[in-house]
Amino acid sequence: MVGKLEGNLVVGQSGGPTAVINASLAGVIQEAKLNSDIKGIYGMLNGIEGLLKEDMIDLRREAPLTIKKLHSTPSAALGSCRHKLGPDDYVKTLKILKAHDIHYFLYIGGNDSMETSHKISQAAEKEGYEMRVLGVPKTIDNDLEVTDHCPGYGSVAKWVAVSTMEAGLDTMAIGIVDKVKVIEIMGRDTGWITAASTLGKRSEDDPPHLTYVPEVPFDDGNFIEDVKKVYDRLGFCVVTVCEGLKDESRESLVASKKAVDTDSFGHKQLGGAADYLCQIVSSKLGLKARFDKPGTIQRVSMALVSKVDLKEAYIVGQIAVKEAAKGVTDKMVTLVRKPSKIYGCTTGLTELEKVANATKVMPRDFINKEGNGMTQEFRKYAMPLVGDPLPEYVKLKKVHIPKKLTT
Amino acid sequence: MVGKLEGNLVVGQSGGPTAVINASLAGVIQEAKLNSDIKGIYGMLNGIEGLLKEDMIDLRREAPLTIKKLHSTPSAALGSCRHKLGPDDYVKTLKILKAHDIHYFLYIGGNDSMETSHKISQAAEKEGYEMRVLGVPKTIDNDLEVTDHCPGYGSVAKWVAVSTMEAGLDTMAIGIVDKVKVIEIMGRDTGWITAASTLGKRSEDDPPHLTYVPEVPFDDGNFIEDVKKVYDRLGFCVVTVCEGLKDESRESLVASKKAVDTDSFGHKQLGGAADYLCQIVSSKLGLKARFDKPGTIQRVSMALVSKVDLKEAYIVGQIAVKEAAKGVTDKMVTLVRKPSKIYGCTTGLTELEKVANATKVMPRDFINKEGNGMTQEFRKYAMPLVGDPLPEYVKLKKVHIPKKLTT
Repeated sequence: MVGKLEGNLVVGQSGGPTAVINASLAGVIQEAKLNSDIKGIYGMLNGIEGLLKEDMIDLRREAPLTIKKLHSTPSAALGSCRHKLGPDDYVKTLKILKAHDIHYFLYIGGNDSMETSHKISQAAEKEGYEMRVLGVPKTIDNDLEVTDHCPGYGSVAKWVAVSTMEAGLDTMAIGIVDKVKVIEIMGRDTGWITAASTLGKRSEDDPPHLTYVPEVPFDDGNFIEDVKKVYDRLGFCVVTVCEGLKDESRESLVASKKAVDTDSFGHKQLGGAADYLCQIVSSKLGLKARFDKPGTIQRVSMALVSKVDLKEAYIVGQIAVKEAAKGVTDKMVTLVRKPSKIYGCTTGLTELEKVANATKVMPRDFINKEGNGMTQEFRKYAMPLVGDPLPEYVKLKKVHIPKKLTT
Repeated sequence: MVGKLEGNLVVGQSGGPTAVINASLAGVIQEAKLNSDIKGIYGMLNGIEGLLKEDMIDLRREAPLTIKKLHSTPSAALGSCRHKLGPDDYVKTLKILKAHDIHYFLYIGGNDSMETSHKISQAAEKEGYEMRVLGVPKTIDNDLEVTDHCPGYGSVAKWVAVSTMEAGLDTMAIGIVDKVKVIEIMGRDTGWITAASTLGKRSEDDPPHLTYVPEVPFDDGNFIEDVKKVYDRLGFCVVTVCEGLKDESRESLVASKKAVDTDSFGHKQLGGAADYLCQIVSSKLGLKARFDKPGTIQRVSMALVSKVDLKEAYIVGQIAVKEAAKGVTDKMVTLVRKPSKIYGCTTGLTELEKVANATKVMPRDFINKEGNGMTQEFRKYAMPLVGDPLPEYVKLKKVHIPKKLTT
C-alpha cells in the first residue's frame, strides 16, 4: 500500500527560539500519537547536534499534560542548535537514524535547518533507506521563501508593535529630557521584524517616526537629516532600527563603522546599530539619545503571543506528520493565505531545496520611497498575523488654561 | 471650619514614566471631581517645567471616558520632566499658582519631586498663602523612604521577573551556541528592580543564575569566578545586572572602567554594565556572551502590569486629594503593609522632607552572602507586589533513548 511505512519518528528544533516553536512540537507529538504506523516518538536534544551524538529522548514518556502545556511555553523545549553538518556527518547521521529504525524525520526550523533536512533526505535516498523527511517552518525572521509567512513572526511582530507603542509613549512624556530614542530590533538580513514596530502607529506624529531596515542601504547623512526634521517638528524623535542594518556596500553598518573601536582588552567592541546611531545623533545634532535593545526577550514573550501565530504553529506541526504519513518526503509545510477579505490560511507543501539557504527580503513596496518607514501594503500584509487588535491607549485633548502672567 | 478651602487644583507628573502613573492621575481627577471645594482641575504639562511657563490644561474638559481609559494607558499623559527648581523659580512658581487661584498642589513623582513639592510648600507658607501640597509616590526604582513600596515598582518587577524567565528559557535552549546571557535592568543607585529578576526562579538551576546589584561593590574577579562555576555546572549561564553597578569606590562601574574607551568621534562610549560584562566574559573565559537591554520598555508594559500595583497607584492619587481636602499639607501619601498573612496595604502620610532626596537601598538581608543573588526575605517582600502568580512554564522530563552506536 502506497504511503504505509512503520517505524519510529524523530523531531528536532533548530535555530533561534520563538514564542510558538513548542506549539509546533506539540502539534507533531499529538498528531504522531494518533498514527498507528508511528511507533517511537523521539526528540533530538539540541537538534541535529544532539542527534549526531545519539542524544534522543522518548517523547511518549512525557505526560499528556506536559505536551499540552508545551503549547503555552516559549523557547525550544528540546533545546536548539546552530550546527552545519559536514559531509561525514550525513553518513553518521543516517547510520544513527537506521540503527534506531527511524523512518520519520521532522525538523522545525529556518532556512539552514531546511538545508540540513534536504541533505539528510538525499543521503537516505542515495542509500535506498525509506525515510520521510518533513520541514516545519519556524523563524521570527520571516525570511523563508514560498510560505506566506513563518510561525514565530506574528508573535515577535506583536511584541515589537506593542513595545514600540509603549516605549514611544514613554519618550513622548520624557522627551523634554531624553530627546531621541532608538530601539534596536532583531533581524540579521531582513527588516520584517523591525517593520512591525510601525503597526501601532495611527498618525504621522505617533512613534516610531523613523524606521530603518537592511533592505535599504543606510546613509548616516540622510539619517541625521531625517532625525532633525522630526525633532524640529515635535521636539523629540523615536527611531526603530534593525540590528542588521547595512551600508551601501551591503556590509553590516556596525562592523564597518566600528572596526576602529577596540576596547581596553583589544577586542572589537560589542554593541550594535542603535548604540552607533545614538552616538551620531549626539555628536552631529547635540541631542541626548538613548537606546533600548530588548534582544532575545522580544522573541519569547507569552504575554504578547499572537493567537493566530500560536494556532498556525501548532497546525504546521500536525500537518507535517499527516503529510509524512501519506508518503510525502523532502518537503516543507507552507502557509498559504486565502484570497478572502477575512484573514485565513491553508497549508501547502514546497520542496525543501527551494527554501534551503534562501532568504526572502521585504518587497520594495512594503518600504516607503524615502526608505525610512513602512507602507500600507506592509500593514495589510502584517496586521492579521498579529492576531489581536493592538491596544488603544488614550491621549488627552489638552485644552489649555489661558495664561495670566506670561505670554 | 477647619479644612475648608475653596480654589483650584493642579496636578503634575514627574520623573521617569511608569505603567501606572496615569492610574494615579485618574485617581486624583476622579476624586477631585467629587469635592465641591475644588473648582478647576488643572494639569501641568511636563510637570514643574511646564508650570513655570504657565503651561496648564483643563482636566475638566477631558471626557470621563478618557479619564477612565487613563487607568490602562502607560507612561505619563501630562508629560513629565526632570527639572530642579532654582531659588528664583520658587518665587515665580508661587506667583503663577496665586494668579490661578490654585490652593491644591499635587505632584506625582519620586524623591526629587518630593523635594520640589516641599520647597513649594515652604515658599507658600512663608508668604502666608494657604495651599495644600501633597506628594503622590511614584517610582519604578522603589527607593522612596517610609513607604513600604512605590507605585510603579510592582509592574516593572513583574515585567522583569517574567521576561527573565522567558529569556532564561531562550538561553537554556540555545546555550549550546550563546553560552552567557547578560540582562541589563534599570536602577541608578539601587537594585530593587534587578532583584525582581529572580522572582520566577524555582530552583538553583533556573535562570537567572547570578544577579548583581549596586548595594554590593562589584568585583570583576569574583564575577568571572561566579560565571565560570555556573558554566562548568550547566554549560550556560544567565546573569541579571543593574545598570547602576558600582565598584569598591562607589563609582559607577561603567564610567570608571570605560573612561579610556572613546569612539571615532572622540566621545566617551555610551553603553552599559551588561555590555562591559559581556566583554570581560568573552576576554577572560573565551565564552560567547550576548546582552539584552530592554531599557524603557520594561517600565511601561500594560500586558504585564501588576493588578495590585495598578489598584494601589489609583488609591494613592485618590487619598492625596482626600487628605488635602481635610487640611493636610506638606505630606506624601505612603503605603503601609498590613501585618496579616494575606497581603494588603493601607495608606499613611509622611513629611515630604523625610522622603525628599533620600534613597532607600535594599536591606543587606535581601541579598545573599556572596552578593550574587537574592534571599527568601526579598522574595517574601516582593512577590505580593507582582499581583498575579508568575507563569508556570513546563519542562520535559527527558527520558533518554538508550544509545546503540556511541557510548
